[in-house]
Amino acid sequence: MTESLTGSLNVCVVGGTGAEGSGLAMRWARAGHRVTIGSRDAAKAAAAATELNQKLGKPLICGAASDEAVAGADVVVLTVPYAGQMATATGLKDALAGKILIDVTVPLVPPKVSRVQLPEADSCCVALQAALGENVKVVSAFQNVSAHKLKDPDKTIECDVLVTGDDKEARAVAIRLAGDAGLRGIDAGPLANSVVAEALTSVLIFINRTYKVPDAGIRITGIDQPKAE
Amino acid sequence: MTESLTGSLNVCVVGGTGAEGSGLAMRWARAGHRVTIGSRDAAKAAAAATELNQKLGKPLICGAASDEAVAGADVVVLTVPYAGQMATATGLKDALAGKILIDVTVPLVPPKVSRVQLPEADSCCVALQAALGENVKVVSAFQNVSAHKLKDPDKTIECDVLVTGDDKEARAVAIRLAGDAGLRGIDAGPLANSVVAEALTSVLIFINRTYKVPDAGIRITGIDQPKAE
Repeated sequence: MTESLTGSLNVCVVGGTGAEGSGLAMRWARAGHRVTIGSRDAAKAAAAATELNQKLGKPLICGAASDEAVAGADVVVLTVPYAGQMATATGLKDALAGKILIDVTVPLVPPKVSRVQLPEADSCCVALQAALGENVKVVSAFQNVSAHKLKDPDKTIECDVLVTGDDKEARAVAIRLAGDAGLRGIDAGPLANSVVAEALTSVLIFINRTYKVPDAGIRITGIDQPKAE
Repeated sequence: MTESLTGSLNVCVVGGTGAEGSGLAMRWARAGHRVTIGSRDAAKAAAAATELNQKLGKPLICGAASDEAVAGADVVVLTVPYAGQMATATGLKDALAGKILIDVTVPLVPPKVSRVQLPEADSCCVALQAALGENVKVVSAFQNVSAHKLKDPDKTIECDVLVTGDDKEARAVAIRLAGDAGLRGIDAGPLANSVVAEALTSVLIFINRTYKVPDAGIRITGIDQPKAE
């Protein structure tokens, strides 16, 4: 792995004002990473950072305009609603050059969010990689983790993170960040496999409704000692 | 649920000469269901049944030509390779009328079986339902269960079964049969959600190779007490 991607990372969470993004941001900040919330509106990003720092009891998280935050990051995490995914990421294309982009987007199509409705390219992460080009290493992860549980940084979450992407080293970084957020990242292969994690969210929503539970998740069984590099 | 679908069922396993089908057949026979192996070649079906009965130590399973076996069944289970799925099932269309068809098919496209390659209709079970029409209740299940573990009827299997289909009662029958095979069936919604289970098999194959384990599987977390009907 590249030297710069070991140790403490500069992580920019674009969309860190939402539940999923802010939960991840807090967990990574507590794990020792330098976390910046990126938003189109710098003031909104700063306000979100202040709020998270209050929850953490320490000034660990910064806020900045997205392009600036992305430029200073080793790893960028995209946690915006599906409707904004493509425009937000392509708008940051230049700043993203050479970086790892972890896309958390779930292509839900309301109102039938418990029914799988695949996007045209089958996977919205595959579509994003195509739009951004080879210069950005898109990794898909965190689609199946309950935002509700993430936002309490002390909560133990019983859910594995399927990590897919066409660059093995980039997948390894996402797997490490999953671990630092208190989750188990699983190397799930090429970005084409992202469709499973994206579509699984609709299945989990169906299960939540049918079994009347708040946060169904998944575990991969049969790999007690993950040995992937 | 229809009265005829409680108690002991007449289950026909088409493709019961393969590893997945024969494992399920043995487990259901031991659970008290009347199981018939169906094959285009009646003699081959009878030979497969004899072999399974020897493993079971009791003459519980019969063999018959597929059309005959299907005609006498309450529930038909299709466990043939993807290449034979459509032709086998549509060839039995008349015999399948009014019945539940549990399709176990995984649309793997060799040689890249650890990479998701969705079929044209996204899900091969959705394609089959369209081909068979409303008169057959197609349910998708068992795609993620290791055939290797199934074939030993005493083996405990750490894997849930995602059950999808457009008929709730038919899903309930498949969930019950999963339980009778020693697995936990999970109501995972409409047949459109089958793509998750179908594609997940490629992810599990990738995980088996990457983590050097024989039988990765999945568990749904957060639903300790399934309450779906």
